[in-house]
Amino acid sequence: MTTIEKARSGKAAAQAALGLDRTTKDASLSAMAKALRSGAAAIASANAADLEDAERSGLAAPLLKRLAFDQAKLESSIIALEALRDLPDPVGRLLSARRLDDALVLRQVSCPIGLVAMIFESRPDALVQMAGLVAKSGNAVILKGGREAARTNRALAELIYRAGVAAGLPEAWLSLLESREEVGELLGLDQYVDLLIPRGSKEFVARIKAESRIPVLGHADGICHVYLHEDADPEMAARVVVDSKAQYPAACNAAEVLLVHRAFATRSLGRISSALEAASVRLDLDPESAALLGRAPTKTDSDWAVEYLDLRMAVKLVDGLDEAIGHINRFGSHHTDAIVTSSSEAAERFMDRVDSADVYWNASTRFADGYRYGLGAEVGISTGKLHARGPVGLEGLCTYKWKLSGRGDIVADYASGEKHFKHEDIPL
Amino acid sequence: MTTIEKARSGKAAAQAALGLDRTTKDASLSAMAKALRSGAAAIASANAADLEDAERSGLAAPLLKRLAFDQAKLESSIIALEALRDLPDPVGRLLSARRLDDALVLRQVSCPIGLVAMIFESRPDALVQMAGLVAKSGNAVILKGGREAARTNRALAELIYRAGVAAGLPEAWLSLLESREEVGELLGLDQYVDLLIPRGSKEFVARIKAESRIPVLGHADGICHVYLHEDADPEMAARVVVDSKAQYPAACNAAEVLLVHRAFATRSLGRISSALEAASVRLDLDPESAALLGRAPTKTDSDWAVEYLDLRMAVKLVDGLDEAIGHINRFGSHHTDAIVTSSSEAAERFMDRVDSADVYWNASTRFADGYRYGLGAEVGISTGKLHARGPVGLEGLCTYKWKLSGRGDIVADYASGEKHFKHEDIPL
Repeated sequence: MTTIEKARSGKAAAQAALGLDRTTKDASLSAMAKALRSGAAAIASANAADLEDAERSGLAAPLLKRLAFDQAKLESSIIALEALRDLPDPVGRLLSARRLDDALVLRQVSCPIGLVAMIFESRPDALVQMAGLVAKSGNAVILKGGREAARTNRALAELIYRAGVAAGLPEAWLSLLESREEVGELLGLDQYVDLLIPRGSKEFVARIKAESRIPVLGHADGICHVYLHEDADPEMAARVVVDSKAQYPAACNAAEVLLVHRAFATRSLGRISSALEAASVRLDLDPESAALLGRAPTKTDSDWAVEYLDLRMAVKLVDGLDEAIGHINRFGSHHTDAIVTSSSEAAERFMDRVDSADVYWNASTRFADGYRYGLGAEVGISTGKLHARGPVGLEGLCTYKWKLSGRGDIVADYASGEKHFKHEDIPL
Repeated sequence: MTTIEKARSGKAAAQAALGLDRTTKDASLSAMAKALRSGAAAIASANAADLEDAERSGLAAPLLKRLAFDQAKLESSIIALEALRDLPDPVGRLLSARRLDDALVLRQVSCPIGLVAMIFESRPDALVQMAGLVAKSGNAVILKGGREAARTNRALAELIYRAGVAAGLPEAWLSLLESREEVGELLGLDQYVDLLIPRGSKEFVARIKAESRIPVLGHADGICHVYLHEDADPEMAARVVVDSKAQYPAACNAAEVLLVHRAFATRSLGRISSALEAASVRLDLDPESAALLGRAPTKTDSDWAVEYLDLRMAVKLVDGLDEAIGHINRFGSHHTDAIVTSSSEAAERFMDRVDSADVYWNASTRFADGYRYGLGAEVGISTGKLHARGPVGLEGLCTYKWKLSGRGDIVADYASGEKHFKHEDIPL
């Protein structure tokens, strides 16, 4: 099938899926889990072939590890599908209800978005997770995985797609793209594709945002900050900064820039820098923080929109809370930013005024994650302000519609003044 | 100020407005209402000058009427501002709360979107409404009204802006663009503008959607349908169809296409067509409906994506519910579509499967409106599926953020297995 045919039939599947009930969707998730278990041998041999090619072509060790779809990953994928099945149905939730007049009732009800395209990099387990989220939320999907995982993805998609159709999902509810050219074509198909979810490098996401008119859910940068306020507890500050930076430095929610109140720095910057350096973090010190530590500054330019994704952190001294907020709003990527302070007023001011999806008080930036938030599986993290923001779970794959039921009610009766709206909220 | 300066200072205002409390915002609405009252003479003379120019240049009578900002419109604008003031604060609402662990609490809280640009056509009262919605929701705004209303808009914006600043809104919370060139520049400023809300002709909205990367909230087309099911009550069917088409045919929620079940048509199409024609509606009949009425068909092509915005309606016979749903999903604009039926099963199937923002059972499509829905004032009607859908009120001008409060909590403790998430929902 060509890309446009996949998009067109995917859209038709999405419209058919609008009518799916919970039983069918949950049965499809059970069927997918079963299909993965019984298809283990096919998956293993496809993955072995992908791994062999990848090793031959010299793929780096961490990428090889991400590419591997071993027994443990198979098991955790199966468990994830079953856990999704057991979550409440995100579709058909009554979000609000209002009696407009005696027999005229308005209901705001959650429903699927439609055809979603998800473009992700090498991890084949992402395919299983995405397919499960899509089935649970009654959407249709076009998936594009990494080239290195082509055989594994094909094996997984085949098993999952067939299991879904056998359980009652519409034909073409899932399809796979395999080349970059197909992705390029897809980006132009805004009449069919309702939402793009790209996961990958900053450059990759930025390119997709720039090239398509389809709404994009995701984030390009993760320039996260920790700000240590004047009254921060030094021990807590060290713990939160080290975790934010070093617990997993390649993650988008790892902190890149440390802002320190001058008064706190005078007392405790030495302790904080020692803790970071003990965790193998290399510091990029601004002139003032360097002077305080008796070192040479290594951060002398004024570009603070730095994303190291590595054991490296920029350090800047600030006059106080409002300078920190201003800095974060100017140079940050509106992802996740934390304050360490013992003042609830300072914390609330920080959390209100920092214009980011996730704003934390005395907690590590690394908590920004759908699993840690208890959202079930995660579609991604959005730094956009429309629709879903921050970690996005099943709810982010749903929209809502307004259902109005009457007995032949017409607007002319209200325009003439013969009838009047009652507008009584109906408790949910 | 240049457009980019307006956008930059508007963005700064939006970030300052993140910290506004309800008292300040509501005081600003009272101050605006008062300023309009005391500025009545200045507004009247500006409007008289606009009207004089417009008459001289031969503006059509309905447009002149929209341009007029007389005592009655002034009064209703003032009342609308005071009503907005008295609504609950849309910002700071707790949307969900979850205890991740003993002292680690996650709150999902509503907050303003940021800098919104609203581009509307000739009605100056729209400016007052938009400014009020923006102030109540804690956003900042760039407004562009119709050229014919330039003097009136300037007078209104001046009064409203100053009253807002005097009451505590940030400098540059509102600014006005006056030329098309400025709008063209604005469309490229996606680093500053968070949301575009265009209201106007189909071509105008479509152009804005095509030219800008800024998210757009609104709708280009209003191709709405009424479907008369086999078991519809003929009297109710006639009433709903006539109101949907003729109550105000220039509105986006007026119906354009009538789909009729063949069995119903055989019995009752004559009655429906008589009722429509009695309301001066000219029918574009497909060959089959024309034959049934003993007339010549006037709708012989296959393009059913017609938007008359006039006392004219296309008529097509269908085999049943699923054909009607398929037709609407293919040719409609996902705005508002209604079914007339006495079967609740048919109604639910229609409302679930029609992929539109507003889906109605036994009610006129003309109800799709923020005021009629009881949302307070309306920003616009969105046919997009992300963020807000259908009539959009104050809530559509808000997003949310995640606020996490801990006591120095770090992810390493959970990654090591030393601690475990509790994920207990906190009742709201």
